Amino acid sequence: MGSDGADQSRLRQLNERAVLAAVRSAGPVRVAQIVEQSGLGRTAVEEVLSSLVTRRWLVEESPAIRGRGRPARSYRFRAEAGYVAGLDIGAYSVRGALTDLDGRVLASVRHPVAPEMRRDERLGTADQVIAECAREAGVPVSRVWAVGAGTTGLVDTTGTVVRANAIPDWAGTNVPAHFTTRLAVADNDSQLAALAEQRHGTPAAGPADMVFLHAGRRTGLALVLDGQLRRGAFGAAADMSALRGVAWEAALQYLHDVVPADVPPLDKAERAFAAARDGDRAARAAVRRYAHAMAVAAATAIAIVDPRLLVLGGSFSRAADVLLEPLTAELTRLCPRVPEVRASELGALCVALGAASLAQDAVHTRLLDPTRGALPTLTSRSL
Amino acid sequence: MGSDGADQSRLRQLNERAVLAAVRSAGPVRVAQIVEQSGLGRTAVEEVLSSLVTRRWLVEESPAIRGRGRPARSYRFRAEAGYVAGLDIGAYSVRGALTDLDGRVLASVRHPVAPEMRRDERLGTADQVIAECAREAGVPVSRVWAVGAGTTGLVDTTGTVVRANAIPDWAGTNVPAHFTTRLAVADNDSQLAALAEQRHGTPAAGPADMVFLHAGRRTGLALVLDGQLRRGAFGAAADMSALRGVAWEAALQYLHDVVPADVPPLDKAERAFAAARDGDRAARAAVRRYAHAMAVAAATAIAIVDPRLLVLGGSFSRAADVLLEPLTAELTRLCPRVPEVRASELGALCVALGAASLAQDAVHTRLLDPTRGALPTLTSRSL
Repeated sequence: MGSDGADQSRLRQLNERAVLAAVRSAGPVRVAQIVEQSGLGRTAVEEVLSSLVTRRWLVEESPAIRGRGRPARSYRFRAEAGYVAGLDIGAYSVRGALTDLDGRVLASVRHPVAPEMRRDERLGTADQVIAECAREAGVPVSRVWAVGAGTTGLVDTTGTVVRANAIPDWAGTNVPAHFTTRLAVADNDSQLAALAEQRHGTPAAGPADMVFLHAGRRTGLALVLDGQLRRGAFGAAADMSALRGVAWEAALQYLHDVVPADVPPLDKAERAFAAARDGDRAARAAVRRYAHAMAVAAATAIAIVDPRLLVLGGSFSRAADVLLEPLTAELTRLCPRVPEVRASELGALCVALGAASLAQDAVHTRLLDPTRGALPTLTSRSL
Repeated sequence: MGSDGADQSRLRQLNERAVLAAVRSAGPVRVAQIVEQSGLGRTAVEEVLSSLVTRRWLVEESPAIRGRGRPARSYRFRAEAGYVAGLDIGAYSVRGALTDLDGRVLASVRHPVAPEMRRDERLGTADQVIAECAREAGVPVSRVWAVGAGTTGLVDTTGTVVRANAIPDWAGTNVPAHFTTRLAVADNDSQLAALAEQRHGTPAAGPADMVFLHAGRRTGLALVLDGQLRRGAFGAAADMSALRGVAWEAALQYLHDVVPADVPPLDKAERAFAAARDGDRAARAAVRRYAHAMAVAAATAIAIVDPRLLVLGGSFSRAADVLLEPLTAELTRLCPRVPEVRASELGALCVALGAASLAQDAVHTRLLDPTRGALPTLTSRSL
């Protein structure tokens, strides 16, 4: 039946993935550790390692010689083997961040757009953002293996926008379908911002248990529980549009109302925060009213999941110096048990960073998928 | 230093726990499987198995002979080696369930109490309930190794009642501290009812993702997310007293108001459901108003966690025939995305069953705790 050769080749592919998984999960590791983690024999491991180095998936590292004798060789995953783009597709701007496969940020780009822009124009802008990110990072765009996209509205598990109040022409869009030449995934912007906070936030490992308040031009809530982003059965966890008494738009208006009418819409909130910072009484009152509206929404989520931490994220996190105190005061008034309250340090790039994390996860899953064939030799963009 | 013997004995204790863990997690297993799961050599496994059988922790089973040759021996954990009691300590009753270490229910008992009963009287009733459960099951009370207690109010991680509106003399009680001769644990009643649903509910494995609506004389919400009971940072997840616009007591009153004043308080709700079942218009309206109040609270939790399932549990789940339809209708009106709605089949025993599960977990953790000494020989109640 001639299946012996096929079995051998199949076994080899499984071994490759087991070794790759062991190296990825443990960082630079020595052969003995890989043998232990992968459960394979030493000879098999060494064969696979040599093949993966030749095909440029792994790098052999020479450790500093600390003692006598031959130093043990160690291997690391070549995170620069490929790149992913994280996109934040909003009503007023499309942002992008380019990262390597371990999430190191190499470039970021922002293009202004308008809410009434047509669907294909908005997606065309996303393509431009990816190309510019690659150029800025000095990476051939063909090596951007995967795209993750965060976008406003309710996004289902296939990456289709189910509802998007902020963009008239957006509901019904399957975002991944646009990126035909790459692995592509999409999710709700606030959920991805929370994912970014969990992966990149302070402390280094990011918080494992939080309500994330995504505050900016767009507003939303998201949950990270026991180390996992909670998406929900319909992808709608913490979708506050389902709650009564929560009025995001009105809250933003408090801030807009205290700045001159000729200030461009995108700059208004920042101007209001600046005025509050300077002691302007009307601005300070507007910030308090805004903080109150945010706290009402956040308090509901806090009552339900009882988190360790509330993180103020999104672009308004840069105004934490004037926003955090009234927010904390309102939460203290509303919640019987107040979690620790903290501002994110990721700022306005949080959604794009979270989208890049989602894309990294998709690459990781595909690389380690045992039902796929042999790992390719890294000379093309093929994955 | 004479440490060789100590090391040997320590190693043997660790091996015992590894073998016990392998047998417990896999059900009746053959020696080869234990070798694989425990990571120990065959000789070590066989030695430990023989010792654990002698000391009555495991039972050797003779499999039916299916083929020729000597059938492989298999082993099972002796779930009847010890027992646990699950208690439901409420304002109006103390219930108990006695189970073996695998959760099989052998007896259940209920004692009426009064809200104004003193703390030590209530706890004394709990002791009586345990003794009666043991008698009903034909088990010496000394073999009840552990007690789990579910109780009304907010219960912190040490098992101390932080707040209990339904029982005047209850806040401040550390419930486990009362059970000095046994391993004891305590938690909030609604959370334990949800735990019971997850362990014992239909389908057999129980739902892994749900909002649990605990409806009965006491009312509450609890969450099971991704297979885990969500307790919360302060043990207060889904503690609805933290939310506005939720009035449990008023909701119960709708039901009480449609039955004659001379019906005893504990029977009123059941009488209202019976009248609704018989088509009484006032009773049907009362059930609808009650369902509306429950739905408002549940809808908030649904909006935040977006579960696959809402389970109607507690003693009122026995009135699902009249309650489920108006509840589902209200949820459909309130929630943009309605999960599947289902009634529990555990009825009024749910809290005691969940408390027993908590106690089983505590026994399990202690049995497998590697910092403890040798497993005792099972002739006494010692654990």
